Amino acid sequence: MRMQIGAFLARRLTEAGVRHLFGVPGDFNLSFLEQIQEADGIEFVGNCNELNAAYAADGYARTSGIAALVTTFGVGDLGAIGGIAGAYAENVPVVHITGTPPLHAVNSRALVHHTLVNGDYDNIGRCMSEFTVAQTRITPANAAFEIDRVLRSCWLERRPVHLQLPSDVTHVVVEVPEAPLMLADPSSDPHQLREATRRIVEALASARFPAIVVDADADRFGVTELVQKLAEKCSIPCASLTPAKSALNETSRHYVGTYVGAASAEPVRSIVENADCLIGVGLRFTDTSTALFSQHFNPEAFIDLRRHDLSLGTTQIPGVTLRDVLARVVDDAQPVVRERATQALAAASDALPASSGNVPLTHAALWPRIRRFLKPRDVILGEAGTSHASLSAMKLPPGATYIAQPIWGAIGYTLPALFGSLVGTPSRRHLLFIGDGSFQLTAQELSSILRRDLKPVIFLLNNSGYTIERLILGEHSAYNDVANWHYAGLPHAFDRRERALSLVVETVADLEAALNRAESAEHLVFIELKLPMMDAPESLKKFADIFADFDYGERGPRNPSKLVASEAPAHGHSLTDETA
Amino acid sequence: MRMQIGAFLARRLTEAGVRHLFGVPGDFNLSFLEQIQEADGIEFVGNCNELNAAYAADGYARTSGIAALVTTFGVGDLGAIGGIAGAYAENVPVVHITGTPPLHAVNSRALVHHTLVNGDYDNIGRCMSEFTVAQTRITPANAAFEIDRVLRSCWLERRPVHLQLPSDVTHVVVEVPEAPLMLADPSSDPHQLREATRRIVEALASARFPAIVVDADADRFGVTELVQKLAEKCSIPCASLTPAKSALNETSRHYVGTYVGAASAEPVRSIVENADCLIGVGLRFTDTSTALFSQHFNPEAFIDLRRHDLSLGTTQIPGVTLRDVLARVVDDAQPVVRERATQALAAASDALPASSGNVPLTHAALWPRIRRFLKPRDVILGEAGTSHASLSAMKLPPGATYIAQPIWGAIGYTLPALFGSLVGTPSRRHLLFIGDGSFQLTAQELSSILRRDLKPVIFLLNNSGYTIERLILGEHSAYNDVANWHYAGLPHAFDRRERALSLVVETVADLEAALNRAESAEHLVFIELKLPMMDAPESLKKFADIFADFDYGERGPRNPSKLVASEAPAHGHSLTDETA
Repeated sequence: MRMQIGAFLARRLTEAGVRHLFGVPGDFNLSFLEQIQEADGIEFVGNCNELNAAYAADGYARTSGIAALVTTFGVGDLGAIGGIAGAYAENVPVVHITGTPPLHAVNSRALVHHTLVNGDYDNIGRCMSEFTVAQTRITPANAAFEIDRVLRSCWLERRPVHLQLPSDVTHVVVEVPEAPLMLADPSSDPHQLREATRRIVEALASARFPAIVVDADADRFGVTELVQKLAEKCSIPCASLTPAKSALNETSRHYVGTYVGAASAEPVRSIVENADCLIGVGLRFTDTSTALFSQHFNPEAFIDLRRHDLSLGTTQIPGVTLRDVLARVVDDAQPVVRERATQALAAASDALPASSGNVPLTHAALWPRIRRFLKPRDVILGEAGTSHASLSAMKLPPGATYIAQPIWGAIGYTLPALFGSLVGTPSRRHLLFIGDGSFQLTAQELSSILRRDLKPVIFLLNNSGYTIERLILGEHSAYNDVANWHYAGLPHAFDRRERALSLVVETVADLEAALNRAESAEHLVFIELKLPMMDAPESLKKFADIFADFDYGERGPRNPSKLVASEAPAHGHSLTDETA
Repeated sequence: MRMQIGAFLARRLTEAGVRHLFGVPGDFNLSFLEQIQEADGIEFVGNCNELNAAYAADGYARTSGIAALVTTFGVGDLGAIGGIAGAYAENVPVVHITGTPPLHAVNSRALVHHTLVNGDYDNIGRCMSEFTVAQTRITPANAAFEIDRVLRSCWLERRPVHLQLPSDVTHVVVEVPEAPLMLADPSSDPHQLREATRRIVEALASARFPAIVVDADADRFGVTELVQKLAEKCSIPCASLTPAKSALNETSRHYVGTYVGAASAEPVRSIVENADCLIGVGLRFTDTSTALFSQHFNPEAFIDLRRHDLSLGTTQIPGVTLRDVLARVVDDAQPVVRERATQALAAASDALPASSGNVPLTHAALWPRIRRFLKPRDVILGEAGTSHASLSAMKLPPGATYIAQPIWGAIGYTLPALFGSLVGTPSRRHLLFIGDGSFQLTAQELSSILRRDLKPVIFLLNNSGYTIERLILGEHSAYNDVANWHYAGLPHAFDRRERALSLVVETVADLEAALNRAESAEHLVFIELKLPMMDAPESLKKFADIFADFDYGERGPRNPSKLVASEAPAHGHSLTDETA
């Protein structure tokens, strides 16, 4: 059949499961946007800027499976690239489409706007290729197969891809496949699969203390149910790395908590580190996931399940997928009954700390009340800093989804990600926890949430600047200050309809009243929480100390409170040292 | 002498003329920020996000000569990269410093946050190298010479450079030069200079209709005075390309206006195109500068003066600098007296259009009143779209500086650029003209302006979306809509001190009252101008039409108003075409 190239791309996006296209219009993508407007099953959702669009797409993909955004060449692509890199780091499938200058201009190296006017049309593509798993420049000659190739790669790797769509080819008609695009995972080699399964089942059968640890790929590759079935069948305690927070049902009797290397709570640490058969699902041992590489386990007991291959100890087995292996192991493993493991997460049933209502709010009083506020199937977003540190130590209700960016760690990510996730799944309640410093990076996307009358509850933790940075260095340094906005006034400045409920919380009593009002609110709720500048969860303070040691070296500076009397602060020295 | 590496970098920055360092803190740059805090003559100025920091640095360099910003690795760099690319396209010297993970982590390819956790520490540098003229990763071994090399390149090319500063080497002490950094332009070859000058002087002497056209480099390389002296001495009419708006004194009797190829007003077009000796200063014939490459002149009569070389017709002469050549030509040229040229710009002395005060505001009524509001030495920023189109056709007062981004053309640039320019030159009055769509991209930087109690007058042109895009395509398409913020409420949401004067203008009378109040205001003035959605200067409407033809091809879509009766709109076709 024949279709216009842009219409075919729109069709392929919807077949892949994309129902909303984020982005910002620009002259090089307007002809494509006209086609999106006429296409069935896909809607353009404008963002305030391109970085926010990329974050929104990332958030959308977290709860809707796959996402897409469209930008204009150069200015738009480079605005979005940080969010695309974040999606790469976090294994999130995002299709990034760029409207480029017309193909005739590209081919003649014309000096057009949104370029460096040096005739180079490949520089943007080279940059995007650093943070995407497939790239193409669509032409009438290649459109029919390149679009499919790139979309398949996006799904195969659960990572971003980049398509350049010249503005003058969108309406060119080409011959395209009639069959819908099928985004299937690859199949496994039957012999390899049988062999792998046999060895894993044997290892499990002979283990006395097996354990499972999952990372984000368990969620991205849709195998969390299989992991839970295996845990149930064989009574295996399960832990997650931080990027997989909420992937497993945290109220399950086999779930023990988050493994963070030496910083893990007991019994998580001992269960993982003493396992005589440790099954890892997509594990990446990063600095923040392991409290600076302090993970510790027996390599011979380690079965490392990856997307499309695995290893048992030193044996490598390619050609087997995560899903196939887990499904077969669930079938073949012998049932085992063991004691229920103890959990290391703070649960909503834990006692609230004793604090009368009229005292200033602190983290100690805040989070137990937030725990009780959570409901099954909530989508909870935790911005880098005190919010993420607190939420990752909390037991989440069944069916809850937790969204954060623990690997890429770009502050400001969560607010546009909240918008994106809400666009795709507006029927789920969404809660965002974000600090003042982070909020300022992407604040305008609050207006997009209000514009669509979406109804999240946003908790703005106002602790007078970058508290996580202060904990690492510069406790009292001016560079860690930010402007003190009238945050609660923003929802009204961003939406003339003034339907949002804005509240300011200074005391525990205020918080309890605010949570009550949020329960019954009909529109967006924005709650500014005033918190002491240096108040933070203890885990974050410890984390900050080890990162200062890692980052600045022996001679480098430290917060004064971290220096013992015998140490002279390096940054107290004269900046010029002419003694030699 | 010996210094800590970070302190040496701070010293070099101040020696280069950088008094303010823009940016956003992150754990990998905090140890350097501690050194900036202790250094003399340089102040850290925090931005709300990294893109805004890059734009602020760009704006600072436009009025203060050279600028610097600091970001953290990965997340920060990619946030800023669009602004860095813009500075490259626009020839603006910006030093971008990144605090990277510690050198030991880079060398061991450790899987740390703010990376893709794949051990690649070079991907960010590869991206930055696309948009910078020099790059380095500083180590204790190379710091003493690499810092100087990169800063020299920045100044030599008037373009961005990128330095990666690992977080653990900032406090390492190294031997460094005692002599201050001298950022001199290169010298010319005396013989080549003599020969080039002789030929230019001869060409001028035999010309009956000489003309000079300058581009942005006339400003960046500080030769505008020399150009004006030459024009004065030899009675040569001068024009500028749009990127050089305000570089020449527009009230000079030799200045004729802006040359935009076939779209030029008379007499600018005929003076440039009929010149029998046309001296170009740093010309780049881009799409927007030439109304899509419609420039036209006699190549044999063209003397192309570039930064470090030149050509006369087909003769190339390397090894001569713009400054040296112009200085010698000014000295050697024979004085000539000719008639004064007519100017093609709208001047403040032009009659105001007759419109009684109580009528809705339109562009036709707005800009003549703005012209009268301008003062000598104002810094005027014109955002892409209706603002830039209007301001570039206006005669600016002597000493005024006009800041825009006509080549890179990233919407949202001007608000953070305003902040940057104000930080460096707070004593000059600054005026910003920006549309609602553009404003939303970078709106939060308004809070940085308020935080330092800077006092610009900001005109927010609220025309209900992306009017420049609507003119090109999608006149009534929803993708060109933006949320209708309560703009005048933002200054108060962004600053609890509520010192700004916020006004909403709907009529001509409102505008006149607002301008009067702005004259005597003591703090920031924010004026929301309500304008009809499709109202725009005629020049922009024409520009939009030729760009639609260029961008979308014959088959591509057009606004319905552009289609004659016989043409069927391509986008009105069925998206699926199965006729073949």
